Amino acid sequence: MPFYQAPVRDTQFVLSNVVGLERYANLPGFAEATPDMVAAVLEAGGKFCSEVLAPLNLPGDIEGCTRHADGSVTTPKGFKSAYDQFCEGGWGTLMADTAWGGQGLPYVVGTAFQEYLQSANMAFAMYPGLSEGAQAAIEAVGDEAQKAKWLPPMVAGRWTGTMNLTEPHCGTDLGLIRTRAVRNDDGSYAITGTKIFISAGEHDLAENIVHLVLAKTEGAPDTVKGISLFIVPKFLVGDDGSLGARNAVSCGSIEHKMGIHANATCVMNYDGAVGYMLGEEFKGLKAMFIMMNAARLGVGVQGLAQGEVAYQNAVAYARDRRQGRALSGAKEPEAKADPILVHPDVRRMLMDGRAFNEGARALILWGALQVDLAKKAATPEEREMADDLISLLTPVIKGYCTDKGLDVAVASQQVFGGHGYVREWGMEQFVRDARIAQIYEGTNGIQALDLVGRKLAMNGGRGLRAWLALVKGEIAVADDAALAFLKSPLEKALGDLEASTMWLMSNAMGNPDEAGAGSVAYLHMMGIVALGHMWLVMAGAAQAALAAGEDVAFHEAKLVTARYYAERFLPDTAALRARLEAGSATMMAMPAEAF
Amino acid sequence: MPFYQAPVRDTQFVLSNVVGLERYANLPGFAEATPDMVAAVLEAGGKFCSEVLAPLNLPGDIEGCTRHADGSVTTPKGFKSAYDQFCEGGWGTLMADTAWGGQGLPYVVGTAFQEYLQSANMAFAMYPGLSEGAQAAIEAVGDEAQKAKWLPPMVAGRWTGTMNLTEPHCGTDLGLIRTRAVRNDDGSYAITGTKIFISAGEHDLAENIVHLVLAKTEGAPDTVKGISLFIVPKFLVGDDGSLGARNAVSCGSIEHKMGIHANATCVMNYDGAVGYMLGEEFKGLKAMFIMMNAARLGVGVQGLAQGEVAYQNAVAYARDRRQGRALSGAKEPEAKADPILVHPDVRRMLMDGRAFNEGARALILWGALQVDLAKKAATPEEREMADDLISLLTPVIKGYCTDKGLDVAVASQQVFGGHGYVREWGMEQFVRDARIAQIYEGTNGIQALDLVGRKLAMNGGRGLRAWLALVKGEIAVADDAALAFLKSPLEKALGDLEASTMWLMSNAMGNPDEAGAGSVAYLHMMGIVALGHMWLVMAGAAQAALAAGEDVAFHEAKLVTARYYAERFLPDTAALRARLEAGSATMMAMPAEAF
Repeated sequence: MPFYQAPVRDTQFVLSNVVGLERYANLPGFAEATPDMVAAVLEAGGKFCSEVLAPLNLPGDIEGCTRHADGSVTTPKGFKSAYDQFCEGGWGTLMADTAWGGQGLPYVVGTAFQEYLQSANMAFAMYPGLSEGAQAAIEAVGDEAQKAKWLPPMVAGRWTGTMNLTEPHCGTDLGLIRTRAVRNDDGSYAITGTKIFISAGEHDLAENIVHLVLAKTEGAPDTVKGISLFIVPKFLVGDDGSLGARNAVSCGSIEHKMGIHANATCVMNYDGAVGYMLGEEFKGLKAMFIMMNAARLGVGVQGLAQGEVAYQNAVAYARDRRQGRALSGAKEPEAKADPILVHPDVRRMLMDGRAFNEGARALILWGALQVDLAKKAATPEEREMADDLISLLTPVIKGYCTDKGLDVAVASQQVFGGHGYVREWGMEQFVRDARIAQIYEGTNGIQALDLVGRKLAMNGGRGLRAWLALVKGEIAVADDAALAFLKSPLEKALGDLEASTMWLMSNAMGNPDEAGAGSVAYLHMMGIVALGHMWLVMAGAAQAALAAGEDVAFHEAKLVTARYYAERFLPDTAALRARLEAGSATMMAMPAEAF
Repeated sequence: MPFYQAPVRDTQFVLSNVVGLERYANLPGFAEATPDMVAAVLEAGGKFCSEVLAPLNLPGDIEGCTRHADGSVTTPKGFKSAYDQFCEGGWGTLMADTAWGGQGLPYVVGTAFQEYLQSANMAFAMYPGLSEGAQAAIEAVGDEAQKAKWLPPMVAGRWTGTMNLTEPHCGTDLGLIRTRAVRNDDGSYAITGTKIFISAGEHDLAENIVHLVLAKTEGAPDTVKGISLFIVPKFLVGDDGSLGARNAVSCGSIEHKMGIHANATCVMNYDGAVGYMLGEEFKGLKAMFIMMNAARLGVGVQGLAQGEVAYQNAVAYARDRRQGRALSGAKEPEAKADPILVHPDVRRMLMDGRAFNEGARALILWGALQVDLAKKAATPEEREMADDLISLLTPVIKGYCTDKGLDVAVASQQVFGGHGYVREWGMEQFVRDARIAQIYEGTNGIQALDLVGRKLAMNGGRGLRAWLALVKGEIAVADDAALAFLKSPLEKALGDLEASTMWLMSNAMGNPDEAGAGSVAYLHMMGIVALGHMWLVMAGAAQAALAAGEDVAFHEAKLVTARYYAERFLPDTAALRARLEAGSATMMAMPAEAF
């Protein structure tokens, strides 16, 4: 039976040394996030995740969700009780605005907790996770009456929310959607259509479900420019907030999926359901992207989270399992075999996981800080820069962290040998669950296109310049001697990234296929450099702490891992650059019928 | 619903141009393998796989195997009928010796068919696959009476065989096994113990099951040197071959696994079961490795096979699914969207699959030819060289082809977007099934240790030298102008491999951990170069065919794919070499308690 322990010590290291949380105490919400408060949230949150949610993860996978003949959906045993505890503990309110009953804590603190949640039970975490996305959209584009009506019960968790984009014939290309919204006399709309892949679309955890649905109004252009967004509740809601009649929306079926079995992925049928326009007509996609951007960061967290929990279990197994002898001679000759942790190749798999997990944790929390700063920093310049940085790095966090999250889950499963393939050990579930994160909220190929096709050139390349300056600044101030082991390969990797950027600028303008052909390689390169940047910051902090004699074992391990990252991750940029510079000619040369 | 089409044209290209089958017509078995005969086997075999086995793959995954209270196991609906057709068609007898009712065809021809079988239905293919491994061991070390008794019904498929190595506490480290064999008065043995992960350990397809079981005799050394091998049939067999009493061996449970659900993975309980020693006492492991080496090649085939079927389905989806527009402007403006095959990143995923699949097919069939030549070549020198080559490359074929097979299955699944995560499309099954191939028959980490720890230095490095000479010879004769696109990156990759070999020789002698730390990187490097070697041979053949105006579309596609391999696979050796040369110091520096 797998276990999970929240890596609170490491989160705190990142919050202190990468995020520098205490520097922002003057900003709204940060003042409340005192070190003691944050420590209490992480400790109690980690304990809740380990003790309440993690034990439900494997049983939830085995049982899955059940759709009944009346369209209702039952979540696995224990989920309803865990969800009630989640709400009672206020775990869904950390980041929400105090105006709607939230705690108003910084996004970066909420994101730290999100990692624990996603490690402990990804399928469970998606129910409140989708709801937070829907809340973000209502908060961003709803009018005051809509916010007052829908947000408080959603923040409290009495109601949950969903995102309804995909239809059977379209996912990436939303211009093709066919769901229709016909205006009623009272100003509401009648929504008709079929949406698929609706996570948490129907379940038994909450009293009501608030669907946010993309649809086209009558006479709207039949393209992305004709899409509007609607609030379509499962139960109609009176002015006093009381639940009324069942709306004409129902779950037609649930998907049998590779993983996240305990989250209901629904086909939702809208049959003239009452909906309320959210934001402006034809601006539906823009509103949806507000949710989507937050959601993409959250999916990056899932990649890390599955990597982390898989790593933890692999370490425990590698300490416990005895098989063969160390290559350099028996380490525990009194036993019949050594623990497999003595084997370099087992350590390689574990260190791959550790170096990614710790780097990704830093990058994600640093990214979450930018989300806070984009809203709350003191000056417009600071807000703009934070917004530029997180816009640039969102596709990298989503794409790179989920690709690597799968790799780490696979390598951790590999440590178990044949046992890793057997359900009861839980490792194969981490792999199956991690896999979806590369696909949803825009496949990683779409993330890469967003990066090279939009984000690089956005505002004349301002975000990219700002980020490169940050990385170079960190390299410039890093100690030449003590940090040479990391500085020098990071500079080389950065050189590959910059050369690739130049290559894209020179070639993709004339032939956009060149950007498409190199986009995933470029995204991975930027991910490697972005984690390298974080490792440089962390290694410097670890050296300083060691010089002061603080928490020696922790900081020494941090430095060993930094060295591992330098030796075994950073050199990959050269091969990625070679792939990118190979261009698109060969892959486009193949006639469609020859594949 | 996924489909499968046997790639007969490509197999024939490899048999003609890489294997050069006609050159060996003077050898036993090869004379019968005329081009017409081989074409008929591939066509009919491919048809059987596509039409009978492939349609059972997804339903078999969903239904899985069922163990009943009496210990009997039922395979999924349709499996028994398909197995009967498999036996009637003689599909299990292709490679078997004519002395036991086989067709005596070359191993290379049988291996070509194995690929089709494993693509169409991997879980099904394992029932006869395990049986062929058991037959190989009986043939290699059994006495004449044993061969005459056990082989004919196994070759005919009336009985199947299994391999029983693993126990709950040991897999890789077989010296730890506890199963005991106590000699009976009649010369047979009473076998007692528990074996786990026994593929095809119990099922309803055959009349009898012949278990080959590793056990320790009384007084044997409690190490690998004390292991003997035993034949333990499910039903005892009379001298006339008739089935007698049920033996004291039973299936205690079946595993719930990530994939290959339709193959029963059994816990087998031996409770004083009657067994017969196979081969010499204490030489059990050696006999088992006869099966294991053939099995490892077969597992490499599984990696290719899952990559191939996943690729085929991804191509079909990419042609059919319309979403968005080509980056360079609409390709089919009359439709609302272009097929996603227009997108470079979709083509990248497909070409990654294609370049691997075709290269791996060539390497595997070339390897299978060495198995034939090691037994049948005219001179001892030729036999020795073939044996050297296949000994060296077996861990590479197993390790590299299964690692890449998973990658290709994952990328092919990714082409489907969200649909790839849903069971009914079948793509997620390919990923789950492919995953086991990296684990069983020795994890890929064990393969890498076998390569760097044993195979490189075997016979003073004779095998490695022979293989390097082959690759260099091919480079030397390749046309400088027409093949420069492939020669030059292959030379560079070969340079990385040779430098890494030197590095291992210089460093691993003093510290074996250096070999362990770099072993997987080295194996991947050798895999990349080995496929590059095959691509050079194939590209030359394709150019020659084009010069002669033969089958233009096929050979042009082959050249495009060769170029893709040169551009996007070969450059990876540099990063792998950097990882290898990073050595073991960092990963070994982490204290066990710090992980």
